[in-house]
Amino acid sequence: MNQEKIILGIDPGTNIMGYGVLKISGRKAEMVAMGVIDLHKYGDHYLKLGHIFERVTGIIESYLPDEMAIEAPFFGKNVQSMLKLGRAQGVAMVAAIQRQVPITEYAPMKIKMAITGIGTASKEQVADMLRRMLHLDPEEMGKYMDASDALGAAYCHYLQMSRPQSESKVKSWKDFAKKKGLI
Amino acid sequence: MNQEKIILGIDPGTNIMGYGVLKISGRKAEMVAMGVIDLHKYGDHYLKLGHIFERVTGIIESYLPDEMAIEAPFFGKNVQSMLKLGRAQGVAMVAAIQRQVPITEYAPMKIKMAITGIGTASKEQVADMLRRMLHLDPEEMGKYMDASDALGAAYCHYLQMSRPQSESKVKSWKDFAKKKGLI
Repeated sequence: MNQEKIILGIDPGTNIMGYGVLKISGRKAEMVAMGVIDLHKYGDHYLKLGHIFERVTGIIESYLPDEMAIEAPFFGKNVQSMLKLGRAQGVAMVAAIQRQVPITEYAPMKIKMAITGIGTASKEQVADMLRRMLHLDPEEMGKYMDASDALGAAYCHYLQMSRPQSESKVKSWKDFAKKKGLI
Repeated sequence: MNQEKIILGIDPGTNIMGYGVLKISGRKAEMVAMGVIDLHKYGDHYLKLGHIFERVTGIIESYLPDEMAIEAPFFGKNVQSMLKLGRAQGVAMVAAIQRQVPITEYAPMKIKMAITGIGTASKEQVADMLRRMLHLDPEEMGKYMDASDALGAAYCHYLQMSRPQSESKVKSWKDFAKKKGLI
């Protein structure tokens, strides 16, 4: 991985949407942008969806990411909240699809695990680890706390990409043994 | 309601998406187009979402609807299927939002009730009633069976619009009594 790559991390919610942009140069990762889009002020559900689409499209046009990593919980409290979350996710995804940006989804636990080594890490622990790894200003990180999950998704994707043979991608023990040269 | 109006009905699913276009002239409703978009051939979930967006955008550009009515179940088997359905719904919705087409959602039972008078009516009963009300060719209706729910959503919206004082919009008994001139 010698070339430069831009990874956009997105954490789409129905009330708050976080984003983080990472620039990868060789083995170095650098934070280019992060932010939070507050959707509370848009009372109407459709206005919120329209705003998510506009903003994600705008971010893609500004930073021209090569890949998009999205934090996607697969389980939720109830079917109602999952339907709403699915709508927000779908809208953010189609903004990327329209601009030919490949998407990879990561479960929240997977992101926490990749960054802190603990699948049940708190938001603060994830933010703190990202701050140290990316040499970020603590004040800036604190300001965009809700963007840390998005930046975490981008960082998780960077780690995933830079691993030449991801063991998580091994499909079976036979496959694993073959890759390790045991059979 | 004297002016002409075009209503687009959409029944977005992750494997089959149905649509139906109604032209309303005064008190007359006429079917302009109906069809089914088979998403099975797109194995990739993101390709499906991209295709829903492209097709809904294309239909909107072709028929320039004034309103969009969408069949939207609020309950589902499990959170997984609701998340997937939410994504498909969100993508279809944002295609309309991008073109400034107002959206109204109708629960499946509401559509069945509005068209057949029976909330638990079968797909065949809904299709048969629509066929008779809109004077459609039985063969054509049979060919696009999966579009009948979408056409039903459009027809349900037409009925809703043409009712000057919908009782379903009454918020309380006091409100109801006031409207009826009882208090």
